Amino acid sequence: MKTNESIIEGRNACIEAIRAGKTIEKIYVLNGCEDGPIRTILREAAKKKIIVERVDKETLDRLAQTGHHQGVVLRCAAYEYSSLEDILAKAEAAGEPPFIIILDDIEDPHNLGAIIRTANLAGAHGVIIHNRRAVGLTDTVVKTSAGAVNYTPVAKVTNIAKTIEELKKQGMWFVCADMDGSRMYDLNLTGPMGLVIGNEGNGVSRLVKEKCDFVASIPMKGDIDSLNASVACGVLAYEIVRQRAFSK
Amino acid sequence: MKTNESIIEGRNACIEAIRAGKTIEKIYVLNGCEDGPIRTILREAAKKKIIVERVDKETLDRLAQTGHHQGVVLRCAAYEYSSLEDILAKAEAAGEPPFIIILDDIEDPHNLGAIIRTANLAGAHGVIIHNRRAVGLTDTVVKTSAGAVNYTPVAKVTNIAKTIEELKKQGMWFVCADMDGSRMYDLNLTGPMGLVIGNEGNGVSRLVKEKCDFVASIPMKGDIDSLNASVACGVLAYEIVRQRAFSK
Repeated sequence: MKTNESIIEGRNACIEAIRAGKTIEKIYVLNGCEDGPIRTILREAAKKKIIVERVDKETLDRLAQTGHHQGVVLRCAAYEYSSLEDILAKAEAAGEPPFIIILDDIEDPHNLGAIIRTANLAGAHGVIIHNRRAVGLTDTVVKTSAGAVNYTPVAKVTNIAKTIEELKKQGMWFVCADMDGSRMYDLNLTGPMGLVIGNEGNGVSRLVKEKCDFVASIPMKGDIDSLNASVACGVLAYEIVRQRAFSK
Repeated sequence: MKTNESIIEGRNACIEAIRAGKTIEKIYVLNGCEDGPIRTILREAAKKKIIVERVDKETLDRLAQTGHHQGVVLRCAAYEYSSLEDILAKAEAAGEPPFIIILDDIEDPHNLGAIIRTANLAGAHGVIIHNRRAVGLTDTVVKTSAGAVNYTPVAKVTNIAKTIEELKKQGMWFVCADMDGSRMYDLNLTGPMGLVIGNEGNGVSRLVKEKCDFVASIPMKGDIDSLNASVACGVLAYEIVRQRAFSK
């Protein structure tokens, strides 16, 4: 559990952090910035009695870590990781078969952020990452998740293959993405499902792939080898969403 | 048309640039780096008589612009933009109904790169971007496209709404993504199709949206507002791929 302070940048990320009830120290807003999204932030901040400070561009640029603050930055406690049990409990509370996204070593924080965002909107109950090698919940991840880290639990595990084995004992099925798999439309992905996304350069590791019940391929018509990892995750997650929607 | 030199970094991007027959000045490889992907690069370079220079990490870090060179960097002429006619000709040559991705002001080079990569693999015949406001084919875009810019034409236009109007006269249909649209599964997206993806913060502009025949929504179960733009593009592009595959 981390309790360090953390900087959140950008309008969507700030609005979501406020709405999600994060403990926010202060919001920094660019002098003279008064458009719709900024007014929303000021209104939400007033409701929750959060201190807002107007600052000049230089101060905001210095506070921001990516340079894409869009006129607003806020400071709050860094994110806490959830447990595998939290994720399963979330599925149970929703009365839904578990849907978990497992990342077999995503390295790029933009990809991790985009994947947590996808997990949230596709109705996945959580994201599992490797606790040593992969990228964690850094500020870039928080920002690119557009606030999804406030809602979608992210758990760290020491061994992805063993975690899959344990979850299989609890009735879950696992599908990983690889070019040599069956066309995703031809698989039945409606059950309690773990979607495994491999590393950007090397794909899914052999050990993890062997644990999976299905290997799914995304149809590829082009000249290059693979989709961006977060796009591939989105396409497969939404194939699961589609199959679940039409199997009811 | 640009003829400036350009740096390409990372293994996939370098392999694809070599295979695509780009005019390459020189390839820089990290001393002692001899694994599979690097051997592939050396073999391809030898075939095409491209000069390879072994360099130390400091030199590579200096040449690379993103810091993610993975032990290899190459220098070649920067990318040329195609024309709208090139894109339509590509569809005609393939004997397929045109499938074009139109970006209504994507700002993030990672998103543009990932979208060109998606366009290539989903079988789109080209990508159209705005010629002033949006990000262009920078080195970051080339790298994140994983080589797809070598195959998938990217055209710049001065007015997205007018371009849509002209293409509609030629029998194309247009679909944009927005939350208030019809569920994407319920639309018929099998014809000659332009997929319009809006800006990361503001979505599709009103003028452009009015020109579209369909507004498609991606089902969203979560707490936040929207998917990452390149993920949304991937999900919608693959809905078009799926509908085309099953309509045959």
